[in-house]
Amino acid sequence: MRPELLSRALSLLPERGGRPELEHYLEMLRDYPQRGGKGIRSELLLASARVHGARPGTPAWEGALWLAAALELFQNWVLIHDDIEDDSEERRGQPALHRLHGTPLAINAGDALHVYMWEAVHRSGVPGAMEEFLTMIHRTAEGQHLDLSWVEHREWALQEADYLQMVELKTSYYTVIAPLRLGAIAAGVSPHPAFRDAGLALGTAFQIRDDVLNLLGDPAKYGKEIGGDLLEGKRTLIVLHWLAGAEVDQKEAFLEQMLRNRPDKDPGVIDEIHRWLLDSGSVNYAQDYAHAQARVGLELLEEAFQHAPDAGAAQELLGAVRELATRDA
Amino acid sequence: MRPELLSRALSLLPERGGRPELEHYLEMLRDYPQRGGKGIRSELLLASARVHGARPGTPAWEGALWLAAALELFQNWVLIHDDIEDDSEERRGQPALHRLHGTPLAINAGDALHVYMWEAVHRSGVPGAMEEFLTMIHRTAEGQHLDLSWVEHREWALQEADYLQMVELKTSYYTVIAPLRLGAIAAGVSPHPAFRDAGLALGTAFQIRDDVLNLLGDPAKYGKEIGGDLLEGKRTLIVLHWLAGAEVDQKEAFLEQMLRNRPDKDPGVIDEIHRWLLDSGSVNYAQDYAHAQARVGLELLEEAFQHAPDAGAAQELLGAVRELATRDA
Repeated sequence: MRPELLSRALSLLPERGGRPELEHYLEMLRDYPQRGGKGIRSELLLASARVHGARPGTPAWEGALWLAAALELFQNWVLIHDDIEDDSEERRGQPALHRLHGTPLAINAGDALHVYMWEAVHRSGVPGAMEEFLTMIHRTAEGQHLDLSWVEHREWALQEADYLQMVELKTSYYTVIAPLRLGAIAAGVSPHPAFRDAGLALGTAFQIRDDVLNLLGDPAKYGKEIGGDLLEGKRTLIVLHWLAGAEVDQKEAFLEQMLRNRPDKDPGVIDEIHRWLLDSGSVNYAQDYAHAQARVGLELLEEAFQHAPDAGAAQELLGAVRELATRDA
Repeated sequence: MRPELLSRALSLLPERGGRPELEHYLEMLRDYPQRGGKGIRSELLLASARVHGARPGTPAWEGALWLAAALELFQNWVLIHDDIEDDSEERRGQPALHRLHGTPLAINAGDALHVYMWEAVHRSGVPGAMEEFLTMIHRTAEGQHLDLSWVEHREWALQEADYLQMVELKTSYYTVIAPLRLGAIAAGVSPHPAFRDAGLALGTAFQIRDDVLNLLGDPAKYGKEIGGDLLEGKRTLIVLHWLAGAEVDQKEAFLEQMLRNRPDKDPGVIDEIHRWLLDSGSVNYAQDYAHAQARVGLELLEEAFQHAPDAGAAQELLGAVRELATRDA
């Protein structure tokens, strides 16, 4: 995220803990935000605020900055808990927080950042922002439940539609819909109703792109372990598409690995499955699906922005969103 | 908690999930609240609202009810995460949520209830309530970090003052200080400054009473496993006092067990330590300390209530608080 958002978010934390354990607590809270996330969602929020006429230096812009900081805090507390839930090894090129400090302290640190997120929302003073955050997190938690419950119950009898519903809930709200809407309300404008459908499509494109990168991304850029989704038993459009047409022995080998907990999975077989997926047409299928969704979302957004107060800012936002859906990290 | 608070809290959740996994999600969210906590903190908040002149049926009372529901939601999401952090087996006489559904889904359910808590705060419409909740949770999370970091780092070189600071942060704010203050602001009255010191003392008395009950409570009434604090390696005033004067071999046996993770602890030795603690003077020492703190807190509160709008309600509140500090479950 941009440095001014990082310092704004961290300015909510006390500077000193008063005793060594609480210094350590504050270090844990600052850790993920300081690892330098890309700030995709906060940039989208600020871009939307500009599109809707909020000008830097105005009170509206100040409100937008607090909401952007809150969105980054959201992303960071969710990642702390996500990494525990998925038992991920790495985050942004470094060990996940619970691998550094143990699960109990990491859960608590995530909860604490969650509270600082609400503090940032409150500081924004933007009417309606609290409701937006409530809706956004409800949908995200529902999507997260779908994802996690499939892992917990070894559920692989899923259709593409199941995956797509999960992604809409888990990714689209906080990645696209909420940033677009929050930018509008920070500028004092009622959000365009099409933001919802646009955001659902673009969020889906975004998540599928992430799933693809998890299989064939550049480890140096990606920041998470390549193939980590397979080790964590994640459902993806790629895997569900491949499963539907896979040879019986490959399918069996796959499901047999997916019945195992992460530490019991056979790295050799997982590597083999990884290759099968790359060699199948399923990565291309998913890429095409993502591109189609991105196109739908961008068209809806272009239409919604036709009468936007700042047409230049609207063009910039559309370009940035287009890049997101085709990014390579 | 009283039934009207339970239904108020649960009224924030959607009635239907729309698909089986999300029905399951809603069941998880309703589980702890429906297990019938005592509602100590919400009752204290409502009592404080009455003391400060809020009358049932008025908008002020409606605000107080939402804040009371929010406080119960707070208690419940914190317990879900607490039980994971401590790897507790039971909660309110039933298996802890993560033991029923696994840690990932339970973390997410706790996060979701956390968000519903903010929704209840928002619904209250009480000016200043959000700030109260922010402060309350910050202090609770700091205290929780102290407690958990001592467990994580096998830290037993602690003074009674360390324990007392932990308890003030972890227990006093959300158990006494915040309920007293929230009741006042719901009634439109500025909270008396003495609530802070009164709450610190009473919260300490309350937590020490809980520590004592964990060693010698009636399992049928207590709802958690008796001796669970020993298995979880919890620091208590009882243990720290006992350690300071224990015989070398007993102290060594104790510290040797505390170096082990919960599943590796020797139940026979833990039972023996449990008996040593009960036979020592340390339980009485802690009880006396708790009584003295309760006396200090009650005196401060009596003074603060001298000019309370509702003197009868003030007497009731003081009686209820007195009972809390000497409760047997």
